[in-house]
Amino acid sequence: MIEYRTLRVALLGAGSVGSQVAAQLLGRADELASRAGAGIELAGIAVRDVDAPRDADLPRELFTADPEELILSSDIVVELIGGIEPARTLILKALGSGADVVTANKALLAAHGPELFAAAEQVGAQLHYEAAVAGAIPIIRPLRDSLAGDRVQRILGIVNGTTNYILDEMHTKGLGLEEALAVATDLGYAEADPTADIEGHDAAAKAAILAGLAFHTTVPLESVHCEGITGVTAAQIESAKQAGYVVKLLAICEQLESGVSARVHPALVPASHPLASVHGANNAVFVQAEAAGDLMFYGAGAGGIQTASAVLGDIVSVARRHVAGGPGVAESTASAVGIAPFGSIQTRYQISLEVDDRPGVLAAVAGVFSEQGVSVETVLQSSAASAATLVIVTHLAPESALAGTVEALRSNDVVRDVASVLRVEGL
Amino acid sequence: MIEYRTLRVALLGAGSVGSQVAAQLLGRADELASRAGAGIELAGIAVRDVDAPRDADLPRELFTADPEELILSSDIVVELIGGIEPARTLILKALGSGADVVTANKALLAAHGPELFAAAEQVGAQLHYEAAVAGAIPIIRPLRDSLAGDRVQRILGIVNGTTNYILDEMHTKGLGLEEALAVATDLGYAEADPTADIEGHDAAAKAAILAGLAFHTTVPLESVHCEGITGVTAAQIESAKQAGYVVKLLAICEQLESGVSARVHPALVPASHPLASVHGANNAVFVQAEAAGDLMFYGAGAGGIQTASAVLGDIVSVARRHVAGGPGVAESTASAVGIAPFGSIQTRYQISLEVDDRPGVLAAVAGVFSEQGVSVETVLQSSAASAATLVIVTHLAPESALAGTVEALRSNDVVRDVASVLRVEGL
Repeated sequence: MIEYRTLRVALLGAGSVGSQVAAQLLGRADELASRAGAGIELAGIAVRDVDAPRDADLPRELFTADPEELILSSDIVVELIGGIEPARTLILKALGSGADVVTANKALLAAHGPELFAAAEQVGAQLHYEAAVAGAIPIIRPLRDSLAGDRVQRILGIVNGTTNYILDEMHTKGLGLEEALAVATDLGYAEADPTADIEGHDAAAKAAILAGLAFHTTVPLESVHCEGITGVTAAQIESAKQAGYVVKLLAICEQLESGVSARVHPALVPASHPLASVHGANNAVFVQAEAAGDLMFYGAGAGGIQTASAVLGDIVSVARRHVAGGPGVAESTASAVGIAPFGSIQTRYQISLEVDDRPGVLAAVAGVFSEQGVSVETVLQSSAASAATLVIVTHLAPESALAGTVEALRSNDVVRDVASVLRVEGL
Repeated sequence: MIEYRTLRVALLGAGSVGSQVAAQLLGRADELASRAGAGIELAGIAVRDVDAPRDADLPRELFTADPEELILSSDIVVELIGGIEPARTLILKALGSGADVVTANKALLAAHGPELFAAAEQVGAQLHYEAAVAGAIPIIRPLRDSLAGDRVQRILGIVNGTTNYILDEMHTKGLGLEEALAVATDLGYAEADPTADIEGHDAAAKAAILAGLAFHTTVPLESVHCEGITGVTAAQIESAKQAGYVVKLLAICEQLESGVSARVHPALVPASHPLASVHGANNAVFVQAEAAGDLMFYGAGAGGIQTASAVLGDIVSVARRHVAGGPGVAESTASAVGIAPFGSIQTRYQISLEVDDRPGVLAAVAGVFSEQGVSVETVLQSSAASAATLVIVTHLAPESALAGTVEALRSNDVVRDVASVLRVEGL
């Protein structure tokens, strides 16, 4: 029987992830101790309402409504409350008291990361957050450590399970957005208020975190261009399918000459691209690095037990270092890198136009592209009655020129309607 | 201008990986210093023959034939010699002198890992080896840290790029093994003596390392069951294709009731499995964990510059911890877990038989399976002249029963030939 030093863990929050973490800390104590080289004791669980109904397996006496007292008597504080406050204040209090911190709070990290990292660095505490991006998929450590000697060029991530589930249902079953959202809600893949997911806010917070890590800088959440999937139609997905594409909501992080860029929007991905075969509520992060080449990390992006796996991994890692001694290594190695304006990013557009079916129309449309300096890769024309449909895929061009092209097309006489505009990524 | 403490790095070996590491340490010194929070100075490169022709960009004065002197004046020793000796002795010397060590040497880790980890732990030194398995793909840290709180159940890995390239050529172009090997050799994907790759020895060393990490134990290389691809025929691949499978050389690590098992052999993988779409010389590691579910890590498995990315990531990580102070966390958290005998692993067989085409044959064949306690999932029968071909896929059964079944079929009167035996994985 090995005797270990025992570390006290404070759990803040007992939602779907918190309950799983608590159950595993209690049920697998010996196993986790041998992994960590230290006993890991669940000291208490801070919740708003101590008397709320709970998982019967969690002893009532562990629950407390006083997070501050719990924090002050703990070695490791695990924040699973979510949102900005009181999570921010409690994490700062934990770091200030010398405790190490594990969090899954992407919104907080995206909004207040620099403040939290500075607080951790000041006292030499550890701050881990593997669960904040892409659930159970290890992506934080690979970016921070394994790729620390390489230059990440680009990240394309499917980092929101809800929207991937919805788009996948639309793609595979031909459902409309409303129908697919209803299925996702029924199955528990979408929350009662799905705004944060379908408007892209959740993915934007993760994009900010990934871009900051990948490019060794701080990317403010406000600088992340964010479009959700609410404008994606069944017709767009059907025509994407016919053209050999899949529509995915992507978080894209790039190092451009003008600075770092992070953006979230629906995009066409070639059916042969590894991201195209990410189905259901799964997540995947595709990383292009200068030396390593293309890498992909794939797995379950959400779910209580899956996310708990990442949180427990962080707890064990933190405990190992806590026992070994020595200060934590600062997680953020931020330096001053500029943020690229959204208009300067390079992308491709697929534009579907309804136009008059008469001579000279194609020339007029082509003229609009050329005026904006946008070069056209393919044009597919199909006619019906007196109208024609043009599906145009451009070459790479600056976002501002592409957006300007769409603007100019909208006000052009030969164009009856700009039926669909989608960016193409992963080519 | 930030002033950093400077760490001296000794490079042992200047092959394709070593030259890349040296070039990057010299050419990106400022960038790597800001990542590490410490200057990283290439102190010297130990090689056997100082006068051999070298990459013109590497200053001649860095080369030395005296690795021991170089080691004693260095903070971090990077071993890229490969093989057992002198690599083992030099790493032990480095650790003994208090230096941290980075290595990509899978053969050495598989054969002498426990000795090296113990030596590192004794002095509180760091020993990192992300490049030893699957080249640039971060797999060591995810297994050791991110999944430290989870229970890994199974790993299916394509961890040898040469054999994957050969099998992929056979699958996509219908080539025979000899032809595909010749192409691989021409393109530099296979070495002049391809034995270690095509006989599965390289993959077996990686399987031993992965299994040890995943199951927190030591897996001796001798206990890894190893079959290469030399017996794989174009006919097998063609019939696999028709049945909806792809043939891959897999490294399989499992936690069974009887202990831990690691094995390497060609296997049928369903075409819909993520591993089936790993083409060319790429690698991928598919991990099934109790809480996290299915994860996959994909990327380039070999190549000088790709492997250098993983080595540089380790150097930066080691430098960060070196500067932060405190002992290294022991990389190995080995405990006593039994090794499962190969006969006890559960798998499926696909068996192709040529049999007499007459009544009672199927019953006789089915009798052989049932005597061995092996249950049959599907039988596909096709006839030509007086002979018939049976393609039988079994349900899960112990390896020993399946091997016993094949043995019994071989000596059965109605069986003219056991044309092909392949395991089926990834179902």
